[in-house]
Amino acid sequence: MTTPALIALDWGTSNLRATLLDAHGHALEHLSAPGGVMKVAPGQFSASLLALCGPWLAEHAVAVIASGMVGSRQGWKEAPYLPCPAKLHEAAHALVRVEIEGAPGSTRHVHIVPGLRCEDARGQADVMRGEETQLWGAGLPPESVCVLPGTHSKWVWLGGSGDVTSFKTYMTGELFGLLTQHGILGRLMTFVQGAALDRDAFDAGVALGRQGHADWAHTIFAARTAGLMGRYEAHRLPDFLSGILMGSEIASALAQGSLRSVSLLGDAPLCERYAAALSQFAIQSQLITQEATTRGQWMLAQAAGLCD
Amino acid sequence: MTTPALIALDWGTSNLRATLLDAHGHALEHLSAPGGVMKVAPGQFSASLLALCGPWLAEHAVAVIASGMVGSRQGWKEAPYLPCPAKLHEAAHALVRVEIEGAPGSTRHVHIVPGLRCEDARGQADVMRGEETQLWGAGLPPESVCVLPGTHSKWVWLGGSGDVTSFKTYMTGELFGLLTQHGILGRLMTFVQGAALDRDAFDAGVALGRQGHADWAHTIFAARTAGLMGRYEAHRLPDFLSGILMGSEIASALAQGSLRSVSLLGDAPLCERYAAALSQFAIQSQLITQEATTRGQWMLAQAAGLCD
Repeated sequence: MTTPALIALDWGTSNLRATLLDAHGHALEHLSAPGGVMKVAPGQFSASLLALCGPWLAEHAVAVIASGMVGSRQGWKEAPYLPCPAKLHEAAHALVRVEIEGAPGSTRHVHIVPGLRCEDARGQADVMRGEETQLWGAGLPPESVCVLPGTHSKWVWLGGSGDVTSFKTYMTGELFGLLTQHGILGRLMTFVQGAALDRDAFDAGVALGRQGHADWAHTIFAARTAGLMGRYEAHRLPDFLSGILMGSEIASALAQGSLRSVSLLGDAPLCERYAAALSQFAIQSQLITQEATTRGQWMLAQAAGLCD
Repeated sequence: MTTPALIALDWGTSNLRATLLDAHGHALEHLSAPGGVMKVAPGQFSASLLALCGPWLAEHAVAVIASGMVGSRQGWKEAPYLPCPAKLHEAAHALVRVEIEGAPGSTRHVHIVPGLRCEDARGQADVMRGEETQLWGAGLPPESVCVLPGTHSKWVWLGGSGDVTSFKTYMTGELFGLLTQHGILGRLMTFVQGAALDRDAFDAGVALGRQGHADWAHTIFAARTAGLMGRYEAHRLPDFLSGILMGSEIASALAQGSLRSVSLLGDAPLCERYAAALSQFAIQSQLITQEATTRGQWMLAQAAGLCD
């Protein structure tokens, strides 16, 4: 076994994932636990970390870096948002150090990666935490746009040196969940586990969302009338609504300027759905499948001199 | 007591409200029960009606008219949507008759008011059921616009003869409920029962929604960042979000054409909130406080010759 050089923690809302990396940044071992930030009581972050990674810390004298919600106000210690435009080396110099209580070896601290913030043309603030590390690890082309689909989808505009120039959050994933699980639209729908994408219904939704994005809270009502009027059967309505929401998101984001291509970074099935929606806008997409978070953590640790 | 002339049923999703009217259309008595359409088992509509209004039906030989969700596919009998533009007398001639099983007197039928449907410029269908009766009863000026705030807010464009030319549904009320009760935005909020409208936070929200309505699923995220960044305390965030949603709705609806004034028809505190938002667009509003539903039912029954 090559010598370990870094412990990288992806510590989000629901899970704690730990990776032991060698001196080339390659993963040696993985551990994970359901001890997400929301489940850790105040003052118990050291104990949660030791419960999962205690043996590693006892055995190896390596640095520990962490990204995700662990750096939020509800996390272990707040790592204040870095303003955009932001560069990797700026983030590396803004790592926030927190002490591991009861550390079993010579490693005494965790270095937490700061999130990013920016302001749009209307003065509206936006934030990300965790995604910045993925972005830096993804090896994105300069002057490009990257979309990270999810509960809160992020559109990210990158500058000439790979810096994050600006970004926008769209609550698309959460809205789909709320509308279908708790709302009136969901009452006319049936959900078929593992069903293939209904491309006809989805494409019609994308087209409607694209035309109607400026009228959002009206346009989504089409998912009700399409059911009432018998345009789509109950099992086709979820993909119709999904299309409306993605078409709206893309049309809204393109108000920043037209695009020929974007990178898609995240869960593969969801990225493929975005790729299908983007194709209706004649936008090509490249799906990035590499483990971007760990790669980004490695790059940040290198830039901060933690692995020397 | 003047002679009764009509039983008018406002039979919605949650409640059944019945009014006994005299020959001048004035209310003589009111009854209500929590037997909304969602709570009545198929085949039990006659029984539900008789449980509430049996004594009236035994005593008076009067017609019965009903409006609301009772005419939906999930209701007693479907009263198909009338296409727009629609006039009161057309609705009066499209009442759908359903038999009261076990009727104790000489009245044998209920006459159900049809809902309305229309299509917008994008070919998107829209529907209303129940609100059309309120509209006809409200005595609205010709060539005017009426807003009915609520779970699903309706914007209604009226023609020269009081006909309903077109309308648009905005899911504003439901979205506010979903986002605050089940969503991430609600987690940063506290809700103070009976608190007065926080006009500063609300107005700032309206301004943001107005500017950002074409970017809806991004703009609402401001209610999270405003909390994270400490711009508003937890108890001020609900009014900020409410303002964003109303400002967006109004800005979206005005894409149909600018307006100087609208009528507001519905729950008074909610209408007052809309009036406050509309004032930022320099739109005057008239709050209609009369019992429009019963008045509309009376007018329809008259036009259909049910009270002769």
